Amino acid sequence: MKYLITGGAGFIGSHIVDELMKRGKQVVVYDNFSTGKKLFIQHHRDNPNFKLVKGDVLDQNLLNKSLAGIDFVFHFAAHADVRSGFENHEIDHIQNLEVTQNVLEAMLENGVKNIAFSSTSSVYGDATVHPTPEDYPFQPTSLYGATKAAAENYIYTYASYYNWKAYIFRFVSWIGERYTHGIIFDLMKKLKENPKQLELLSDGTPKKSSLYVKDGVEAIFTIIEKAEEQINIYNLGHTEVLTVDQIAGIILDELEAHPTKKYLGGKVGWKGDNFFVHLDTRRLNKLGWKPKSTIEEGIKKTIDYLMEDPNLFK
Amino acid sequence: MKYLITGGAGFIGSHIVDELMKRGKQVVVYDNFSTGKKLFIQHHRDNPNFKLVKGDVLDQNLLNKSLAGIDFVFHFAAHADVRSGFENHEIDHIQNLEVTQNVLEAMLENGVKNIAFSSTSSVYGDATVHPTPEDYPFQPTSLYGATKAAAENYIYTYASYYNWKAYIFRFVSWIGERYTHGIIFDLMKKLKENPKQLELLSDGTPKKSSLYVKDGVEAIFTIIEKAEEQINIYNLGHTEVLTVDQIAGIILDELEAHPTKKYLGGKVGWKGDNFFVHLDTRRLNKLGWKPKSTIEEGIKKTIDYLMEDPNLFK
Repeated sequence: MKYLITGGAGFIGSHIVDELMKRGKQVVVYDNFSTGKKLFIQHHRDNPNFKLVKGDVLDQNLLNKSLAGIDFVFHFAAHADVRSGFENHEIDHIQNLEVTQNVLEAMLENGVKNIAFSSTSSVYGDATVHPTPEDYPFQPTSLYGATKAAAENYIYTYASYYNWKAYIFRFVSWIGERYTHGIIFDLMKKLKENPKQLELLSDGTPKKSSLYVKDGVEAIFTIIEKAEEQINIYNLGHTEVLTVDQIAGIILDELEAHPTKKYLGGKVGWKGDNFFVHLDTRRLNKLGWKPKSTIEEGIKKTIDYLMEDPNLFK
Repeated sequence: MKYLITGGAGFIGSHIVDELMKRGKQVVVYDNFSTGKKLFIQHHRDNPNFKLVKGDVLDQNLLNKSLAGIDFVFHFAAHADVRSGFENHEIDHIQNLEVTQNVLEAMLENGVKNIAFSSTSSVYGDATVHPTPEDYPFQPTSLYGATKAAAENYIYTYASYYNWKAYIFRFVSWIGERYTHGIIFDLMKKLKENPKQLELLSDGTPKKSSLYVKDGVEAIFTIIEKAEEQINIYNLGHTEVLTVDQIAGIILDELEAHPTKKYLGGKVGWKGDNFFVHLDTRRLNKLGWKPKSTIEEGIKKTIDYLMEDPNLFK
């Protein structure tokens, strides 16, 4: 099997690449390095099984060429900043939906019959069932969530039309090594700028689940190995949830910081954010997977990683 | 309240226009007449409450101008041919999803806070629960269904972002006066061309529900008057289902035709078609609505209408 990973130089994508390389697979990373980093993949540079294509998923021609001979596509390139969609109504549509259709067309062009896709808990929006199961209907409150949901719909249809196998993963926030943005990053950055007062966007009560990246990668490969439907839709999350205040507390403890806290917002941190994110992972657990790290352990590993980022904290 | 109806010269749209005009409302029909017909709206031409804009929903400038002063948009323009999406992967994306985002942007530009949208049973694809309730997850097997589902997702998000009121109607096939395409049309046309043998695309066993247009219009106005959520999602269908063979039988009886029947296909009539379409309408029934016509009565009225179409059968 030969694999291509869009967004393969990104946070999650590069961990998929590592796992595939470890398994001795042939791997093509397709990335435009808008948020992906060479640093995350450069250790494979001299491996003959590894190939890098610097390209944009909007470039249909290059994408078509790059999928020649590929058996399996991980489509993990995305506009992963949930917040900005409220101000910019085009970016999620283009970067999450249109590029997905480009990938599907390139698969068709090249006879590729397997796709794995990084979707999100945001498709459920402000779900009223917690933990939220996979058959909960889409109720996205952000264009990020709406365009990921739409991309799922398109994948569902192409897989039905052409009898492909599809794996759709609905992620909570991932944390751990190579984490590049999100609440831990934001809070650490703020603390660096002002160690005396920490501003939180919400009132501190929003509840979120997170998943440590190595647990997440294990979940993905468990699903691909064991899930037997033609179209396999799985929540990836943690049984635990932490409030924003608890997350901040872990960071402050770990950094031995003692700022006063200032709450700027209400029940959500920004327009389109969801107050309570907790996914039902029983479908995944039935395949034999459980997270090995607690969320607290994952946050600590993330802090350790970020502390070593020379651009951020040194 | 001033209303704009995209696709207002189409089959369903023009019936919405009739009802609004009957209620003395100010109405703007926005239609490019690609499938809509002047004939369907010309009886309002001299009414001062009526205005016609010949325009395409892809024309963002004209759409923005046309929504000035509007309070409520019925977005009913669509690429309504489910079948062709298998061959043409762009048309549904553009005509169902991109135009919907254009409508949403025009609403934002003009401060319009109410939208009604014509969605479809096709969002459920090959549902395994029958009749299928509104909280069944999207599993579209056609790009028509996928793009309508995606448009729903976008409407959900814009309504959440800007606190709009939204009404999403998931329709089974509509039949009745001004019906322009679908199985009744196809079978009558075939009979005209060859009265001795009638070809059916499937094996005759697919089960479909249909709704007579006057019942459907009544359902839509019942929902708009009585539904109290911010985002209101309703199935519109019939408690009855008929097989393709039963539908053909009603047509043959009504036309007193006695062809032999030839079955061309299997369980579905074309790639992406769904074998069993039956929507759970209890949510709508709770608002006090029931269909007044049986499906058989609706089919007969459709046949009567089509028999008078000078272009088709005279």
